[in-house]
Amino acid sequence: MKKHNFSAGPAILPQSVMQEASEACIEFNGMGMSILEISHRSKQFDAVELEARQLVHEIGGFDDRFAVLFLSGGASTQFALAPMNLLKEGEKAAYVDTGVWASKAIKEAKLFGKAEVLASSKDSNYSFIPKSYDIPSDAAYLHLTSNNTIYGTQLHEFPKSPVPIVCDMSSDMYSRPFDVEQFGLVYAGAQKNLGAAGVTIVIVRKDLIGRSERQLPSMFDYKLHLENGSMYNTPPVFSLYVTMLTLRWLKEQGGLAAIQKHNESKAAILYNEIDANPLFKGTVAVEDRSLMNVCFLPTNADHEAPFMEMAKAAGIDGIKGHRSVGGFRASIYNAMPQSSVQVLVDVMREFAQKNG
Amino acid sequence: MKKHNFSAGPAILPQSVMQEASEACIEFNGMGMSILEISHRSKQFDAVELEARQLVHEIGGFDDRFAVLFLSGGASTQFALAPMNLLKEGEKAAYVDTGVWASKAIKEAKLFGKAEVLASSKDSNYSFIPKSYDIPSDAAYLHLTSNNTIYGTQLHEFPKSPVPIVCDMSSDMYSRPFDVEQFGLVYAGAQKNLGAAGVTIVIVRKDLIGRSERQLPSMFDYKLHLENGSMYNTPPVFSLYVTMLTLRWLKEQGGLAAIQKHNESKAAILYNEIDANPLFKGTVAVEDRSLMNVCFLPTNADHEAPFMEMAKAAGIDGIKGHRSVGGFRASIYNAMPQSSVQVLVDVMREFAQKNG
Repeated sequence: MKKHNFSAGPAILPQSVMQEASEACIEFNGMGMSILEISHRSKQFDAVELEARQLVHEIGGFDDRFAVLFLSGGASTQFALAPMNLLKEGEKAAYVDTGVWASKAIKEAKLFGKAEVLASSKDSNYSFIPKSYDIPSDAAYLHLTSNNTIYGTQLHEFPKSPVPIVCDMSSDMYSRPFDVEQFGLVYAGAQKNLGAAGVTIVIVRKDLIGRSERQLPSMFDYKLHLENGSMYNTPPVFSLYVTMLTLRWLKEQGGLAAIQKHNESKAAILYNEIDANPLFKGTVAVEDRSLMNVCFLPTNADHEAPFMEMAKAAGIDGIKGHRSVGGFRASIYNAMPQSSVQVLVDVMREFAQKNG
Repeated sequence: MKKHNFSAGPAILPQSVMQEASEACIEFNGMGMSILEISHRSKQFDAVELEARQLVHEIGGFDDRFAVLFLSGGASTQFALAPMNLLKEGEKAAYVDTGVWASKAIKEAKLFGKAEVLASSKDSNYSFIPKSYDIPSDAAYLHLTSNNTIYGTQLHEFPKSPVPIVCDMSSDMYSRPFDVEQFGLVYAGAQKNLGAAGVTIVIVRKDLIGRSERQLPSMFDYKLHLENGSMYNTPPVFSLYVTMLTLRWLKEQGGLAAIQKHNESKAAILYNEIDANPLFKGTVAVEDRSLMNVCFLPTNADHEAPFMEMAKAAGIDGIKGHRSVGGFRASIYNAMPQSSVQVLVDVMREFAQKNG
């Protein structure tokens, strides 16, 4: 039976990407070897890194004032690397606390300076995105989390900021257009919209690199990675290759404007059903609803198990909500087809008919 | 034409591993999904991590006094994490400088304390392993590099040390038995003998974790990774899976004693030819010759290009020596079959017949 993969991440990838990745594990690019065994110094892999980098630029629509790095360690490593690279000794950075991951970013920043929390929705279990706060102009940067995977909230408009924005876009990077000019640093683990787990995409304004003036271990220094084209040491070859394939696919889909339409359309189908169906309800402020992670609860808690069972029977996988929210979470990243969202909606309707 | 992959790393993997990895990119473990899209919190992936961890213990023959972690960032990240986790403020660590990678490890350690270099073979372009040095008993640890990929030297006997040994085993871990009792910390990027690039295997004595008493960023703290079973954040799922497959294969080969025999046999065939063939010569002290990376030069520099051409014509790939040594380097890791080494030796003989 066909599975509909609503997992929050690692998450569904385009079928064509998985097919091509599978083939490359046997034979890559006519080399007579597997992508798993080739040198990262080969011209064939150089071409992979270059194409991935150029595609990040091209799809994002920005020039070489920004560096594109492919690192490892996930966004959690960037929580530390951002202040290590951008925050001078004694300076402060501004943070908005919109969830567990934002909190973790704040915790790491405190090891390197002052982290001023401008606003938090923690008391409401992060069910909305705080919007009215002043951004101190003496902060080194403003740190935001654009999409909160666990709670299903998303920042639909970035604030005007007097200081560069540093943004964890792990769960919505390249799911919609964004104006990179506002940002000093953007980072995302690949495993939502940009590939398989194991590589982290970093976009950083070149003139901010080295800003902290700290003496950093080599691997934590953006400067070194820029100078070495993300190949100071062996990069995560296969993960970077899968990211390149995913970026190619994204370009073929028409880029960010086209994928945004696709994502809006999918999310509308699902949120409309949540609002219309008496057996379900959303969990977050309507204006902050995420186009990536759609969280909802059964209006009757007893319905949780039987609905999950009916969904499973329809091939739906990965919709169990995070323990801190409960209920259900349907993650509908770029590669999620509308037809799979429709299957979920159909099950919700069928469930309501049987139990309503 | 069949390729014989002598690449220094990423390097040849067992054919069965690449085949199984390829299949898992389409369908993993009967889940109806690809390994690239499944949650790292799924019970199926939990089983992968657990099996990999247990295999590291079982094949290495050590118990739970040692933790096994699967991290990212390669050995270069461990160059910093070792002192960050094990070296107290004001303490010193002892290092032996056996190559570029050892030098890089020394550089990182200096950011966190005193790094005393006990011995170095730099003046001889690292063509031997220094052996006569005193290990200070007040050092926090002794850092060694067990195999020097670039130069083709290998430590065939670890010194008796009054302090725990920290060892970068990136290019020979699990190519031979070793007694873990002497070690405080062992680390290796997977991409030589243990899988594909993207995951780093760390073995650390549990009672040394937290020794430095430093307040570390979460992702740089062994304690946090131990507490979270290497899944504090999303691990490099696919790379860890390939490592598990490679460890399974290694166990099937008979484990470390058996693979050592296999490796000794392959290396002997090649070194014997280098010593017997008048057109080639070895580059390092005979007693320090690596079983993993066999470096050799043409006795006549003019022979370099034509030999390379003849080797290529025979399907031999990746034998160009590192620029700092020149000539040729045949990397013959665990997965390299003896038949491929024989192809190389045959070409060397044929070349000597034609040009001798």
